[in-house]
Amino acid sequence: MGNKHKVGIIMGSKSDLPVMQDAADILKELGVDFEITVVSAHRTPERMFNYAKTAHERGLNVIIAGAGGAAHLPGMVASITHLPVIGVPVKSSNSIDGWDSILSILQMPNGIPVATVALNAATNAGLLAAQIIAIADPAVSQKLISYKETLKQKVEESAREMGDI
Amino acid sequence: MGNKHKVGIIMGSKSDLPVMQDAADILKELGVDFEITVVSAHRTPERMFNYAKTAHERGLNVIIAGAGGAAHLPGMVASITHLPVIGVPVKSSNSIDGWDSILSILQMPNGIPVATVALNAATNAGLLAAQIIAIADPAVSQKLISYKETLKQKVEESAREMGDI
Amino acid sequence: MGNKHKVGIIMGSKSDLPVMQDAADILKELGVDFEITVVSAHRTPERMFNYAKTAHERGLNVIIAGAGGAAHLPGMVASITHLPVIGVPVKSSNSIDGWDSILSILQMPNGIPVATVALNAATNAGLLAAQIIAIADPAVSQKLISYKETLKQKVEESAREMGDI
Amino acid sequence: MGNKHKVGIIMGSKSDLPVMQDAADILKELGVDFEITVVSAHRTPERMFNYAKTAHERGLNVIIAGAGGAAHLPGMVASITHLPVIGVPVKSSNSIDGWDSILSILQMPNGIPVATVALNAATNAGLLAAQIIAIADPAVSQKLISYKETLKQKVEESAREMGDI
Amino acid sequence: MGNKHKVGIIMGSKSDLPVMQDAADILKELGVDFEITVVSAHRTPERMFNYAKTAHERGLNVIIAGAGGAAHLPGMVASITHLPVIGVPVKSSNSIDGWDSILSILQMPNGIPVATVALNAATNAGLLAAQIIAIADPAVSQKLISYKETLKQKVEESAREMGDI
Amino acid sequence: MGNKHKVGIIMGSKSDLPVMQDAADILKELGVDFEITVVSAHRTPERMFNYAKTAHERGLNVIIAGAGGAAHLPGMVASITHLPVIGVPVKSSNSIDGWDSILSILQMPNGIPVATVALNAATNAGLLAAQIIAIADPAVSQKLISYKETLKQKVEESAREMGDI
Amino acid sequence: MGNKHKVGIIMGSKSDLPVMQDAADILKELGVDFEITVVSAHRTPERMFNYAKTAHERGLNVIIAGAGGAAHLPGMVASITHLPVIGVPVKSSNSIDGWDSILSILQMPNGIPVATVALNAATNAGLLAAQIIAIADPAVSQKLISYKETLKQKVEESAREMGDI
Amino acid sequence: MGNKHKVGIIMGSKSDLPVMQDAADILKELGVDFEITVVSAHRTPERMFNYAKTAHERGLNVIIAGAGGAAHLPGMVASITHLPVIGVPVKSSNSIDGWDSILSILQMPNGIPVATVALNAATNAGLLAAQIIAIADPAVSQKLISYKETLKQKVEESAREMGDI
Repeated sequence: MGNKHKVGIIMGSKSDLPVMQDAADILKELGVDFEITVVSAHRTPERMFNYAKTAHERGLNVIIAGAGGAAHLPGMVASITHLPVIGVPVKSSNSIDGWDSILSILQMPNGIPVATVALNAATNAGLLAAQIIAIADPAVSQKLISYKETLKQKVEESAREMGDI
Repeated sequence: MGNKHKVGIIMGSKSDLPVMQDAADILKELGVDFEITVVSAHRTPERMFNYAKTAHERGLNVIIAGAGGAAHLPGMVASITHLPVIGVPVKSSNSIDGWDSILSILQMPNGIPVATVALNAATNAGLLAAQIIAIADPAVSQKLISYKETLKQKVEESAREMGDI
Repeated sequence: MGNKHKVGIIMGSKSDLPVMQDAADILKELGVDFEITVVSAHRTPERMFNYAKTAHERGLNVIIAGAGGAAHLPGMVASITHLPVIGVPVKSSNSIDGWDSILSILQMPNGIPVATVALNAATNAGLLAAQIIAIADPAVSQKLISYKETLKQKVEESAREMGDI
Repeated sequence: MGNKHKVGIIMGSKSDLPVMQDAADILKELGVDFEITVVSAHRTPERMFNYAKTAHERGLNVIIAGAGGAAHLPGMVASITHLPVIGVPVKSSNSIDGWDSILSILQMPNGIPVATVALNAATNAGLLAAQIIAIADPAVSQKLISYKETLKQKVEESAREMGDI
Repeated sequence: MGNKHKVGIIMGSKSDLPVMQDAADILKELGVDFEITVVSAHRTPERMFNYAKTAHERGLNVIIAGAGGAAHLPGMVASITHLPVIGVPVKSSNSIDGWDSILSILQMPNGIPVATVALNAATNAGLLAAQIIAIADPAVSQKLISYKETLKQKVEESAREMGDI
Repeated sequence: MGNKHKVGIIMGSKSDLPVMQDAADILKELGVDFEITVVSAHRTPERMFNYAKTAHERGLNVIIAGAGGAAHLPGMVASITHLPVIGVPVKSSNSIDGWDSILSILQMPNGIPVATVALNAATNAGLLAAQIIAIADPAVSQKLISYKETLKQKVEESAREMGDI
Repeated sequence: MGNKHKVGIIMGSKSDLPVMQDAADILKELGVDFEITVVSAHRTPERMFNYAKTAHERGLNVIIAGAGGAAHLPGMVASITHLPVIGVPVKSSNSIDGWDSILSILQMPNGIPVATVALNAATNAGLLAAQIIAIADPAVSQKLISYKETLKQKVEESAREMGDI
Repeated sequence: MGNKHKVGIIMGSKSDLPVMQDAADILKELGVDFEITVVSAHRTPERMFNYAKTAHERGLNVIIAGAGGAAHLPGMVASITHLPVIGVPVKSSNSIDGWDSILSILQMPNGIPVATVALNAATNAGLLAAQIIAIADPAVSQKLISYKETLKQKVEESAREMGDI
């Protein structure tokens, strides 16, 4: 359909895929279109530049960017596009317990926001992208309400299993 | 106009206003409607609950929540509403250099995202809210593009002042 | 017996049970009544609200709440009830070495205390609950004195084993 | 009255008084008896030992201990008495931003709990002591309920001032 | 002279100039050519791209880049040019005690080095640039040896003042 | 022999023995007398008190105390005796990466020093004890000089193995 | 060849070799001469002194020094020679998650720079050494340009594998 | 008198004197001989080397070394002499809240101990030096016992002032 919204998921390295796959999975579950690829700010700066520059015209509405260590991908993409950018700090093998990933994504200067989620929380990045799209797409909004209901039911089930009456 | 979008700005304490005012200012500059008030997760849990529960029906599309120390307001509001919630970690007087504010907003469990911005970065929270609304409102999108242009011009002006040719 | 005191043990997720079970075990050892269940501040905010709101009338005297990451459960329960609330920071899988769990439980604003114990120290949470109940229950007080004696004896035994004369 | 409950407030140094005074103030406000003095674990270990050893027989029910840096006072008192001990990490002049004060009070081994409150949060220590005593004293319980109501009203007043309708 | 070497000093914001001026000052003292300007990775990504892309052909041999907070400038410039890039973490007003500045400059992934110096240590950045140029320029090498001698003499003078014999 | 010097090695728990054994081993290697036992500040405060109080008269000259988490043993022993006390921060299972152990041993207030060594560095504690005793015992001094020589030779051997000529 | 440049790679302990080998490997790949050995600042201070003092006259142009814990080797070598020194913080077994290694290499006082790379990033140390030598050696410069191209191609390949068109 | 013991106090920079003066003051108070000067590991490595190498023969028995930032002075002196070395981490202007000073002094590898005291705690460094010398000098031992008594009396006086009976 013409006005369908779409999320771009990018990551700094293929080794971030086990974490970033969660974003794709939740978007699929919520019926949100997405594309996923590798874009490295440091190893392919021009590719990154082009990806961000053309994101809007290629039909993307939200970008999810995951990276670890000195994680510049989310912030640099946000510096180039005016679309909302969600950053996923990845606890990659070269990261110091994730602190570098978090701080280099979170601490953007005023003017260039990155919507940062918890360390490795690509599921939350996908949910946030869906919440953003839900502003213009009531069907996604409905699915998010159901999703919240499911979370609740799982806890109640756990409580029952623990002998709560 | 009937379908105008609106942002709710809340903070845990009136003492957070000097920081959170920046969110209101940038939204005003970008022509985005907003309301602003004090809602404390810890001192007025029912008020917080009602605020979040009725946010959608009262016409809010995005919520910006700022808090410091053990900052539960953004996460708790996000647990109640399905709207996107932007969290502003405030370096309040009782905060340990802002680390507690950041971690208790950022590190939400999967299922309940909070779009966290940098410490005290309420301007970025406002910009992010505008980017989200821009998905459904091309006028806001246009203003964000202009805003980015202004940022660029200010840097170029600084460069000229430093004698760059 | 009518005026028997009781402790409520709650945790944000069933995955916190291996840690929180220690609180139940020590309370059992000290002859203190308790109930244990799962209550998530983020996934079941209404359930959490009701749990805290009715805790006193349901006969609870102390609440032990364990959670990890952006751990809002202890603080939110403390915001709703006037009973003493003991917080156990859990080093859950999504936690950054426990720092987020600790800071988001410990750093409560003035007005809403949470009695925080060490990371994963659910045994100490149970002991603290018993110390609180002991104010009104001399039998528990007596058991705590014996417990302290046991701790001492174990160290002295270790010392003997190491050849201390 | 004979069975009136009482809180002992101690601090490692007279320089901690500006922080610890808040505990005394809130206890006075809530009508809870207390005594306040200086006891240094490091400079007067015998005085500390005697204080803790005789606390129960001298009629104390809860002890609030504040200290900074390598803050051993709360934990050492807790090692000697079976009464509940509340620890206030003080951000003293020799402390590294409060981290040493927090960790050396919070991270007690299993067997010896210290109910730790936020950095410098002596008001919360006093409230927690009152909550503990409220288990055996309904008058204090009632005052705590009123106190919570006051907190709520102050926030609602702030909200009205900000023009919230 | 035709084969004179040259250092490019850039900073993310004019507000970094009081720190970065030290790099210019020491280079002047050591007789090394330099140019200095403002280039923001986040606010002027294209300018940054062009600066880095053309640095070599414009005759630069080393680049010194200073930035604070989520400091992406040094790493992004290093991703575009093959010249050595020296990063100066600046403790800017929006930085968390400098930790974000340090980690987002230092923790570059393998393949893209940034020669990081201490927080705010622009003098050392200038010295390092001179040490690099000294490989091809014996005059600079000689000045560095004299500079080291001066450092030594200042300490010996301090020692004499303190009454050391 | 009558005026032989002696080191007391104590630890908070038998589980610290694998770390603290290194202190005993190096003292044995250097021919320094020692005794080793378990003394818990928290579980056996009176035993700790007596140990420290009688240390001097029992012939001890230096005390090495190892503990983890909220590690109060070294500082409390130092508060009771006037002998030099060496503290070994142990990275025990309940420690937060060793930070709590380090800070609660290192950050002693002025008046009560603890000579702190690196995390788990019981060998260095033993060496330091020997260096202290060497002030009064030339034989130990001689052994320390030989020990330093051995360290050097091991490095030179490594260098040779790596093909250094 | 007479004017060939050369890098000296040193490490504080043979146990750092698995990390530091990466520096040798990348230098070999880029055709840069190097020598590699063990030099301990702490166990062989005179050897370290001589190594640094004679480095220039022995034909070295850049020194790469790796060390962990209280890592003094890079800074001490930099204090003795006027050659550029690259420091590699090693996450050795006695390091606290690498923080000590990083801070004791990075935070050099003004006057004595150490070009610090990321934790364990010996590959980047080698690349930086090559970038420095490239100032005087166009062949190395050319190899660095090719190396950058290879990095880019690997990312593009990953992107293709992920189904990016 | 011939066999009088002596302490050497050194610091990396004259700017450390306001902190390090405390060591001199307490040694004077305790009647312990000392000398005090500036020795920089980084700016005067040879002077440092000579100071440490000749310390023993010049009659020093203990060395107190204070430094800030990447603080190599205490560890390097300890690597050269077999005398006990006490390290004072100084929170100098270029230090990151003292963390770099602490870690680069404390985390010495096994074989080369530095007796580290708290941040800026030069008084404790002086006391520790006196405790070490007291092993061979009963007069100093006696003064330390009196000093401890004074500390106690000051606390008791504070307690009296606070109305303690």
